[in-house]
Amino acid sequence: MATVEVVDFFYLRMPEVEAIADNSQDSLLVRVSSGGDVGWGECDAAPLVSIAAFVAPMSHGICQPVGNSVLGQRLDDSADIARINREVRANSLDLLQTSHTLAGIDMALWDLLGRRRGEPVWRLLGHDSSTAKTPYASQLFGDDPQETLDKGRAQRAAGFRAVKFGWGPYGQGDAATDAAHIAAAREGLGQDGILLVDAGTVWVDDVEAAATRLEALLTHKATWLEEPFISAALGAYSQLAARAAPLRLAGGEGAHNFHMAQQMIDHAGIGYVQIDAGRMGISDAKQVADYAAQRDVRFVNHTFNSHIALSASLQAFAGHAQDDICEYPVEAKPLAREITQSLIERDGDGLVRAPDAPGLGLEVDMAALARYLVQVEITIDGKTVYATPTLT
Amino acid sequence: MATVEVVDFFYLRMPEVEAIADNSQDSLLVRVSSGGDVGWGECDAAPLVSIAAFVAPMSHGICQPVGNSVLGQRLDDSADIARINREVRANSLDLLQTSHTLAGIDMALWDLLGRRRGEPVWRLLGHDSSTAKTPYASQLFGDDPQETLDKGRAQRAAGFRAVKFGWGPYGQGDAATDAAHIAAAREGLGQDGILLVDAGTVWVDDVEAAATRLEALLTHKATWLEEPFISAALGAYSQLAARAAPLRLAGGEGAHNFHMAQQMIDHAGIGYVQIDAGRMGISDAKQVADYAAQRDVRFVNHTFNSHIALSASLQAFAGHAQDDICEYPVEAKPLAREITQSLIERDGDGLVRAPDAPGLGLEVDMAALARYLVQVEITIDGKTVYATPTLT
Repeated sequence: MATVEVVDFFYLRMPEVEAIADNSQDSLLVRVSSGGDVGWGECDAAPLVSIAAFVAPMSHGICQPVGNSVLGQRLDDSADIARINREVRANSLDLLQTSHTLAGIDMALWDLLGRRRGEPVWRLLGHDSSTAKTPYASQLFGDDPQETLDKGRAQRAAGFRAVKFGWGPYGQGDAATDAAHIAAAREGLGQDGILLVDAGTVWVDDVEAAATRLEALLTHKATWLEEPFISAALGAYSQLAARAAPLRLAGGEGAHNFHMAQQMIDHAGIGYVQIDAGRMGISDAKQVADYAAQRDVRFVNHTFNSHIALSASLQAFAGHAQDDICEYPVEAKPLAREITQSLIERDGDGLVRAPDAPGLGLEVDMAALARYLVQVEITIDGKTVYATPTLT
Repeated sequence: MATVEVVDFFYLRMPEVEAIADNSQDSLLVRVSSGGDVGWGECDAAPLVSIAAFVAPMSHGICQPVGNSVLGQRLDDSADIARINREVRANSLDLLQTSHTLAGIDMALWDLLGRRRGEPVWRLLGHDSSTAKTPYASQLFGDDPQETLDKGRAQRAAGFRAVKFGWGPYGQGDAATDAAHIAAAREGLGQDGILLVDAGTVWVDDVEAAATRLEALLTHKATWLEEPFISAALGAYSQLAARAAPLRLAGGEGAHNFHMAQQMIDHAGIGYVQIDAGRMGISDAKQVADYAAQRDVRFVNHTFNSHIALSASLQAFAGHAQDDICEYPVEAKPLAREITQSLIERDGDGLVRAPDAPGLGLEVDMAALARYLVQVEITIDGKTVYATPTLT
């Protein structure tokens, strides 16, 4: 019997972090050690806060630090990972940050188990194969329509048939300006491209504001409108979905457990559910993928970090041929590209798939970690409860 | 024009913290200073994690520390508090712990504004009066039915007509044992008592497991069954609600913003929505109270901390005469009773109401704070980003 012996957190950061919609500016890597094996994961989360969630003193029975339900646990098979997930979520129910901390740990547990068995994670999850996905280049809108057009052309030239434009000026000004960006995006991408649009929750829960953008999206044949509202605004989603057809809505990145994603599938009228394994873990993401398949909703990953998170996200729906597109970060910062020794590259047809290699199929580059490592220390009544681990 | 100049966090803790369902074992008090005035609030949250959410380095545009959207903000009237709430939720959308940190700050902002104006918070919120509520004594089930009976009798003898039993053994064993506890609770409380039962999310989302407990609850005329499931399991809630009538379900303490509570009201079939101002703030709690009134759902506070949190929770529905019961912690630890110079006591009729005094109507006892204060220091690359403030 092996147990979880050590969980190390590495907070990595670019020298400059800007207030833009780019999650790749920092990273919280997690390394789990058990019985001579290690596994790696990555949280999409405020690193300091997620570390604090692992080490915080207990507040009460269901507000325990995440570490209490992970360290010392048996880790022999996938049922152990399920049990660890259940115990963490029960014992840390009142600690909001829990899911984001757990997400990286869950990835690392799967990676470790896969390495130990010599199997890819997707096979341990019950998938028969790792099907090819059309990667969409995920990027910000340009500051003006001309820049949006140029960015569309550039991605097409780089071999991406599917491109998502998001955030930036979209929804910040009037509907006519937004329509000009959509027209520019379509022109840049070409008529046969898959055009995806991300509003970044800009209308919060304002259905009418979002509705004024539908005409341009329909005219220019966008495949989806993503996150018009915050994840919790189910009523606003379902009202807009009814008015938007045949345009479909996408959302779900804000979901940090299976049930939140289930709510969106059941009540928000979305056509695509977008799940970030760096926020809910591979275990819950797999549950969402299976549930979405039952409800005829398409599953798509949400990924804005390193290829550890990308691989983890692909594992959950690797075997689902009908879920045939995936988010593929193309504007990630050097940090996010350098911390693995290799990347999940597109094949000759421009497609990607979860690696057919043990675990998540990637090796961490310790030298790169050293370049970006942040030194953190947390003391409580004079006792150190967390200090950045030495890189070994 | 006044601005938010300083936000101080005080982490308080009992010498011993046990893994039981008692949130009063620690506290995170918040003090806001602006233009010579101060206000106090209290987060129901893992203190270290909630402090980290205020000071964490920015990860990206919508994963900013809460402090970025609070410090330096204008604070002249209630519209400023609304704006601060909006900006925090937008700029810290991807930082899960945000709502719990914001909750205490929001309380402190209202307290400060009320003190400055010489008005109780409920009046600033638009309520005409502070109506009387029947307090229910909130306590854990006994370890066996006899102890549950004794605990019911003791609260009745202490003048509480309404008593809630929760957690402990309930739902952990078989349905027959649970039924014996319910019968004992009813016997201890007397036939005219208001019996409330809290399952503490023990069945997660298992409708059948919960359904086996309905008969005893109906037989012994419980007013509600609280939290059979985790907050996000809306489908499980609505299925059980249909089978439980006339017994009503209660839930919502896990909601950490208006929209999550709205989802429960709209989709979970609950008869009572229970809101903790220490988790979502007074501003969002008031929105929930108003929405619940429109949907014929009763609003009840959830409070397990000090009387700062109790007062804050009462403010939100102070003017709603139809929402006529309130949670009143009776097993709180000394810490939770000592940190205010006075308590919200029951009147001659055994009823309580939000104080008719400026702000939240309570004064903090700085000497008591000193007895429970935890010394925390967080450094990042050698720079201190948080240190427990000196008590002055």
